[in-house]
Amino acid sequence: MSELPADRRPPVVVRVDDAHPDGEVLDAAAPLIGIEDEGYTRGDGVFETMLAVDGAVRKLPRHLARLAHSARLLQLPAPDEDRWRAAVATVLRVAAREGIGTATDLGEETVVKLLVSRGDPTRGAYGLVIVSPVPESTLAAREQGVRALLLPRGHDPAEDAAYPWLLTGAKTLSYAVNMAVLRHVRSLGAQDAIWTASDRRILEGATSSVIAARRTGDRITLLTPEPNHGILPGTTQGAIFAAARERGWELGYGPLYPVDLLESDGVWLASSVRLLAPVTHLDHQVLPVDRELTRLLTSFLTA
Amino acid sequence: MSELPADRRPPVVVRVDDAHPDGEVLDAAAPLIGIEDEGYTRGDGVFETMLAVDGAVRKLPRHLARLAHSARLLQLPAPDEDRWRAAVATVLRVAAREGIGTATDLGEETVVKLLVSRGDPTRGAYGLVIVSPVPESTLAAREQGVRALLLPRGHDPAEDAAYPWLLTGAKTLSYAVNMAVLRHVRSLGAQDAIWTASDRRILEGATSSVIAARRTGDRITLLTPEPNHGILPGTTQGAIFAAARERGWELGYGPLYPVDLLESDGVWLASSVRLLAPVTHLDHQVLPVDRELTRLLTSFLTA
Repeated sequence: MSELPADRRPPVVVRVDDAHPDGEVLDAAAPLIGIEDEGYTRGDGVFETMLAVDGAVRKLPRHLARLAHSARLLQLPAPDEDRWRAAVATVLRVAAREGIGTATDLGEETVVKLLVSRGDPTRGAYGLVIVSPVPESTLAAREQGVRALLLPRGHDPAEDAAYPWLLTGAKTLSYAVNMAVLRHVRSLGAQDAIWTASDRRILEGATSSVIAARRTGDRITLLTPEPNHGILPGTTQGAIFAAARERGWELGYGPLYPVDLLESDGVWLASSVRLLAPVTHLDHQVLPVDRELTRLLTSFLTA
Repeated sequence: MSELPADRRPPVVVRVDDAHPDGEVLDAAAPLIGIEDEGYTRGDGVFETMLAVDGAVRKLPRHLARLAHSARLLQLPAPDEDRWRAAVATVLRVAAREGIGTATDLGEETVVKLLVSRGDPTRGAYGLVIVSPVPESTLAAREQGVRALLLPRGHDPAEDAAYPWLLTGAKTLSYAVNMAVLRHVRSLGAQDAIWTASDRRILEGATSSVIAARRTGDRITLLTPEPNHGILPGTTQGAIFAAARERGWELGYGPLYPVDLLESDGVWLASSVRLLAPVTHLDHQVLPVDRELTRLLTSFLTA
């Protein structure tokens, strides 16, 4: 067999385990998941996808907090933070030894995923930490930006937010719709989707948050759709807005409509690994791309 | 280790495989699914759950048709019908040898699941057939019925039905919400949930269709919520209504509201393995249970 491309090397997997305080390293080249695992049969689990640079996970406290929130909504027993931190340290040590990182301007990058599955009815829930290479397409999106299409979410997710059993605000393994909308936009020559409500209000990207910027002289205002309306609270958007607030920038929390994005001085899809992907085209209309501002906002994420 | 209870024996699994025309028997006691399988990481796959009695799957053509429809919506390559039939025959032969069926009034029963997963990016999509014992709770629900609660679906799924990327009408592995609502009703002392739209219109059960019956003298009318409004077309409801139409019964396709269920002479949750579970209580109100009619409707499903 020929050598796999760099972004196709097998991941490193550690099980967060009571019996192994630092996490148990598993053989990811072999199948690991049982056929009755309800993470597999029912998408019944939660996850976080994070970026590690030079062996340190970015925004780990924000991700651990959101994972715990997701687990609570699904009534899943999430391991405590110390257990996760120990397993993350173990998995990153093994990953560094195996050299699965990608060298970029930022440093040696890897993708770190936390996952809690319901497991099977006999053995119950468990947690995993999975480190894998950064996909080439992710690095390309940072540099070259993405063409995005506005697509109806059908219903307004705010309608769902009142009912905890609908799991609004949980990041679950039930991600088939997010994947389907990405296939749809790719078939139309774009790379990403931005969901809209039935009144055309901007919601979020398929796997990201939406951020827009306005320049007025020296002043920069950052905008994002209103939170708590059924969209997932973005850890990257949250970290950037926190840093901008410290710098005294103005922040706006929607509502945003397509015209607000078209009239902005920059629009980005913000997510943990892709960081800030500039939106170069929205529904085939050219948007201004501000490389300097992209660099500045990305630099807010070094913590 | 003590012997597992009858309904916890490991399943029999066959992979639908180009290289093995009759399907390849896998060892279900070992992990079978890779960590990068997008059926696992993204709930990106489709499935059908069917009942086999004495080695014959009931309503196989309806299930194969719905599976093909689900796969089309997800742009998944589903194996052709001959391939599925061969794999089902193989898996049922092994299951019979291993004696994982349950003897009931109907015969020797097993649960047969068909599944197509996106697989991992390197190896791609695949199909599985999985045979497992009938859960005790399923048999109990047939006999004793279920207490059901009406719960808001948040949005009206009809709003989603216009957009194929929302996968309305596909039976996907992204089933976390269906599982969450069942946990919710169990915490309230019930066994099942019936979704309602925001106008309180009846939609469907968490994993079933809703059927109600009215008797007027000797005449029986069967009712079910209107199809094509964002609910999954039920194969069991479809088979019962087809048989009832042949007998010249009247059929009504909604809209139904809670009062319509409360004023019926019988309400059932219809699904392939549980068959017809009489709803004994709706939101804690007692409903009439017509055992004779339950038996009659169940007998429509022998084909």
